Amino acid sequence: MPSPITDLSKLCIHTITTKPWRLEEAVSRYAEAGVGGITVWRQALAGHSPSAAGDLIRGAGLKIVSLCRGGFFPARDALGRQAAIDENRRVIDEAASLGAPLIVLVCGAVPGLPLTEARRQIADGIAAVLPHAAASGVKLAIEPLHPMYADDRSAINTMKQAAAICAEVRSPWLGIAVDVYHVWWDPDLEEEIERAGRNGWLSAFHVCDWRTPTTDLLEDRGLPGEGCIPIRQIRAWVEHAGFDGWNEVEVFSRTRWAGDQAQFLRDITDSYLKAV
Amino acid sequence: MPSPITDLSKLCIHTITTKPWRLEEAVSRYAEAGVGGITVWRQALAGHSPSAAGDLIRGAGLKIVSLCRGGFFPARDALGRQAAIDENRRVIDEAASLGAPLIVLVCGAVPGLPLTEARRQIADGIAAVLPHAAASGVKLAIEPLHPMYADDRSAINTMKQAAAICAEVRSPWLGIAVDVYHVWWDPDLEEEIERAGRNGWLSAFHVCDWRTPTTDLLEDRGLPGEGCIPIRQIRAWVEHAGFDGWNEVEVFSRTRWAGDQAQFLRDITDSYLKAV
Repeated sequence: MPSPITDLSKLCIHTITTKPWRLEEAVSRYAEAGVGGITVWRQALAGHSPSAAGDLIRGAGLKIVSLCRGGFFPARDALGRQAAIDENRRVIDEAASLGAPLIVLVCGAVPGLPLTEARRQIADGIAAVLPHAAASGVKLAIEPLHPMYADDRSAINTMKQAAAICAEVRSPWLGIAVDVYHVWWDPDLEEEIERAGRNGWLSAFHVCDWRTPTTDLLEDRGLPGEGCIPIRQIRAWVEHAGFDGWNEVEVFSRTRWAGDQAQFLRDITDSYLKAV
Repeated sequence: MPSPITDLSKLCIHTITTKPWRLEEAVSRYAEAGVGGITVWRQALAGHSPSAAGDLIRGAGLKIVSLCRGGFFPARDALGRQAAIDENRRVIDEAASLGAPLIVLVCGAVPGLPLTEARRQIADGIAAVLPHAAASGVKLAIEPLHPMYADDRSAINTMKQAAAICAEVRSPWLGIAVDVYHVWWDPDLEEEIERAGRNGWLSAFHVCDWRTPTTDLLEDRGLPGEGCIPIRQIRAWVEHAGFDGWNEVEVFSRTRWAGDQAQFLRDITDSYLKAV
């Protein structure tokens, strides 16, 4: 087990976590709290040019960790697949203007489209946009999503599947984002983290917790310590595999969004020090 | 792909599917509709002795396919684990009295108990009750549960994990129940079904569908055809692997339970012929 974390320098918060806050407020509040980094969700950029948003964030002393999110490659027809590729090129441009070194990919799925076909289209879509990512100096990270999202969010549901694409594509511009919420149950997790580390694929580490009972498939995530995920154990595996990047708190919680965000931010930093 | 099914002789319905009906009504309605088999949930036995329930079911011309459910082996302490073993012995006695040849195991999980430990306790619990199952002529079937139930329902979340226990225990009295809802997303599904067939582990086949969006983690299952699961494809794999048993419709749906059960039963048989 790694030692508990004693400061917030490696804490990154996803803007979606404090969704009610506009970007300016999130940035100033995170900075004020001593948080080191921020992952920007695209909707938080509404009303800003990405480069101005980047200046705003850097001006407040925060590091931009990644842009969320690209992906959603599979589609029922060629037109849809091309539209997805075009959209991902725009996301890459946005990340470059923002100054985000990494884009998290939620790879996509289409209800009724066979998963094998969706998986093929995802690998092809990534290969299609990767040259533009490389030319833009932006890395892409496949985030395996929990199998409960295999219907319409991602056909990539395990570290092993993400690794298969990384191994096929073989580019320093493609890696894996490990989100404990999605992968904690996987019996191969430790082994696959180790392998991803060995291959240089570990690109991001997202934390939150699995509540019992979970009352909503999307927006009932808990803060670290509010659920059953062995977050510190998984952090140990990730660090042992050579990852020394950010610990990103990404929580979607309807209950939390309905409450006071300043208090929520205090709970985030407390839970981070106690349970990550 | 196998041919569409043209009659209801291999259709089995789980009593929980039409939960508002008491056992007598479920039995007479299923029989009237021409359904061949029934899987009895333990709560449907309330107010009946298992042997009288068995007589009632057989008297109506239905075959008893299985008893749902045993399992829930992991616990925080030895006392809890012993209580689970005792309870599973009682379930085996119930199945024997009822005349059910099979018990479906929802293996259990305890929030915060490491999954590796839960998995060890599950294998040990099964090994502990298996002699009693064999002596009673009742087979046990491990049902891998969807990873979204890894917190408090089952630490066995893939066919591969179920197979690992079967391979460790090696008994003709232990097999696997394949429920498409739990395993449809698994990239190794076809291969693991084939392997389970080769080893004689395929003991039950449960069907329902995954709705998009799914609004509840437990009680928003769809009838076959209402979702994205390639049910007929999976039936093809199961049959190709040598399984020639029942096709069991097991649907938990708050919406359906709130509606007219007679109409629901007609929808079940229609969807069975169209989509299984």
